[in-house]
Amino acid sequence: MELAPIGTVASPLTDPDAAPCQGDEGAPEAWLELVAEVAPALRGIAAGDELLVLTWLDRARRDVLEVHPRGDASRPLAGVFATRSPDRPNPIGLHRVTVLEIAGTRLRVRDLEALDGTPLLDLKPVLGGIAER
Amino acid sequence: MELAPIGTVASPLTDPDAAPCQGDEGAPEAWLELVAEVAPALRGIAAGDELLVLTWLDRARRDVLEVHPRGDASRPLAGVFATRSPDRPNPIGLHRVTVLEIAGTRLRVRDLEALDGTPLLDLKPVLGGIAER
Repeated sequence: MELAPIGTVASPLTDPDAAPCQGDEGAPEAWLELVAEVAPALRGIAAGDELLVLTWLDRARRDVLEVHPRGDASRPLAGVFATRSPDRPNPIGLHRVTVLEIAGTRLRVRDLEALDGTPLLDLKPVLGGIAER
Repeated sequence: MELAPIGTVASPLTDPDAAPCQGDEGAPEAWLELVAEVAPALRGIAAGDELLVLTWLDRARRDVLEVHPRGDASRPLAGVFATRSPDRPNPIGLHRVTVLEIAGTRLRVRDLEALDGTPLLDLKPVLGGIAER
């Protein structure tokens, strides 16, 4: 089970401690820079679409199984599967974004809290008009 | 970027051609059988919770970039990133389920269309009361 990056995040966010926990909590605009080889996989995606972006959270810890939610030490420990902590056995990030612009294999998006340089794993459409971060 | 399975799906679904495309299209109840090592990561999850389940779609093709949506040849080709096709460069499945029962590190769930034996990668809570398949 080996992953191959389909691209990389380009974002002004570089400091994990300063990045918002969720994309709708003040994340700046960012670019999804896809590798040229996957260009055909974008067919049908247009500006205005909502997408789910899967990332590889390469700065996360994989040996952490319990955390204080949102890094708030006053909250009781929770299992990482009950939280969206980046620290988890398989650090796959799931982000809901809106596509603002498509330029070749680069997509400008809103509401992405991933850090600059984060590898991209997959894009999926939001189904049924219902949304998930 | 190497994945480590956190468990396996146990489901009556064994035939890819007979399985529903989405979990709310008639999927039977299934079990998420987690490995003992990740037990602490489940702390805080209870029956009734909605979870997002990430799987490794081990019977998918990774070299497919365009498909007819839902396998319907009468529909025009779409890029796999614009569909939920299991065939995609990184075949990670995303499923929204409801937890019916927890027995140690086994979770009985509703609405999972993954095939029996599918490796489990991650569990995440649904945020903000909004839902995603």
